[in-house]
Amino acid sequence: MPARLLEGRPVADAIWRDVDARSAQFAEDAGRQPALALVSGADEAAAAYGRQIERQFARHGLKTFRASVEAPDFLQHLRGLNADPNVDGILLLTPLPDGVRPEAAALAIDPAKDVDGQHPVNLGRLAQRRQAFAPATARGGLELLKHYEIPLRGTRTVVIGRSPVVGMPLALMLIDADATVMVCHSRSGDLAALARAADLLCVAIGRAGLVGPDHVKPGAVVVDFGTNPLPDDPNRLVGDVQTDAVMEIAGAITPVPGGTGPTTVSVLAEHTVLAAELRRAT
Amino acid sequence: MPARLLEGRPVADAIWRDVDARSAQFAEDAGRQPALALVSGADEAAAAYGRQIERQFARHGLKTFRASVEAPDFLQHLRGLNADPNVDGILLLTPLPDGVRPEAAALAIDPAKDVDGQHPVNLGRLAQRRQAFAPATARGGLELLKHYEIPLRGTRTVVIGRSPVVGMPLALMLIDADATVMVCHSRSGDLAALARAADLLCVAIGRAGLVGPDHVKPGAVVVDFGTNPLPDDPNRLVGDVQTDAVMEIAGAITPVPGGTGPTTVSVLAEHTVLAAELRRAT
Repeated sequence: MPARLLEGRPVADAIWRDVDARSAQFAEDAGRQPALALVSGADEAAAAYGRQIERQFARHGLKTFRASVEAPDFLQHLRGLNADPNVDGILLLTPLPDGVRPEAAALAIDPAKDVDGQHPVNLGRLAQRRQAFAPATARGGLELLKHYEIPLRGTRTVVIGRSPVVGMPLALMLIDADATVMVCHSRSGDLAALARAADLLCVAIGRAGLVGPDHVKPGAVVVDFGTNPLPDDPNRLVGDVQTDAVMEIAGAITPVPGGTGPTTVSVLAEHTVLAAELRRAT
Repeated sequence: MPARLLEGRPVADAIWRDVDARSAQFAEDAGRQPALALVSGADEAAAAYGRQIERQFARHGLKTFRASVEAPDFLQHLRGLNADPNVDGILLLTPLPDGVRPEAAALAIDPAKDVDGQHPVNLGRLAQRRQAFAPATARGGLELLKHYEIPLRGTRTVVIGRSPVVGMPLALMLIDADATVMVCHSRSGDLAALARAADLLCVAIGRAGLVGPDHVKPGAVVVDFGTNPLPDDPNRLVGDVQTDAVMEIAGAITPVPGGTGPTTVSVLAEHTVLAAELRRAT
């Protein structure tokens, strides 16, 4: 029996319904919409992603400000957004312009407006098991697991990948949710044997098809964060998991595209509303 | 053959030798000694630990300032230390006075002076695999492993405990050192079976003798961060590991006392010198 497909769309829809209700309530209370500022350089892919976010936010009662800023003014622009009472969240769209260090840009964001969890203080608060803005993609994966009622407490989990935007924050949130979490990476020895011990396998290593049927325990839940463009067709994305082959073994699996991907923008919206609510409460 | 004993004293001695050389160099360059400010409330145990640190620092060319401050002035006192050019590091001695939230106190420390890694931004930087001040006890454990040349890259490691002062930062540093790390905790199922898969087992869960021979793979390296007072003799400390019984199975083990413990103050000193050097360089 092939694996159950864990699609992201219903998860995102549920998050958007929550956003709709809370953004309407916020607008009634505060007399304005929750607002996200999108900041990019001149990069066209970054701008296109920004427009996609703008369209989705507009459909759900959220305001966006979008600016393309070059290096000399970049950090100053972020400081202006920090000080702006009408901006609740700030999102950096990558690649940043030449001459802007990603670390310096992340540190320039007010952590209370850091809705994509880019500032290290938010990652540190996750590691302290405190309330924090997590990177939206990692949080979206966790929301997907909760939506499909995948048990986490005491669950033997392997996270493949240790990046600060997906693997690490995901591992920290899973530990906080009482999962038993092993973090594997490019230097781990026999990855297939390690992964095969997992009842929940999360893959965020950025290598197309790295995880095959040998990596998966029969019946395991497999969550694929990979979004790798195909070499011969860069508009088509494939995951880090060999989905078709793994489908025959896993108990449940997220497709690519259509799995963890669709949750990201809805989580950014939820974080923007939350940031607005928290700022209004203090 | 009983396990090799991994004693902390030679590790601490090596760190102190490094501190001696660098603090002398700093004093020559800067015309003053690197300095650590110790801040406590009225608690006598905290003050006693502070005096112990003072004595050790004085022997190695490091200056200390010690203040006992009550709740109304506590955060303001920390801000004063942040601004003081003659203070390189700040250490909070627990328990903090009533009325001071530990989180607020940690956030009030300048991260550049946070030599015990209490500010979440330092924990977040560890999770980003960037240079950061880690909590001294966790860093001391890592220094011990390096001193005894325990291989870390690709090593199957289990960390039992997820506290923000030992388990979490230790796990993050081990991941950064290319170990394959599983974090277990009080909600993990069959702890013995999980731990028995580890070639390196680090225990920081704060429960006397939780880890017995059933938890240990023959030949494994066992690092014990436990410091549990004996109920009938609170001046005697025992670890989280049943040392005598585990000694018959493990390949190497840290004793309690005398294992990870002695490294802590030397790491605080090294961090104080590093903070002084970094502040002078910028």
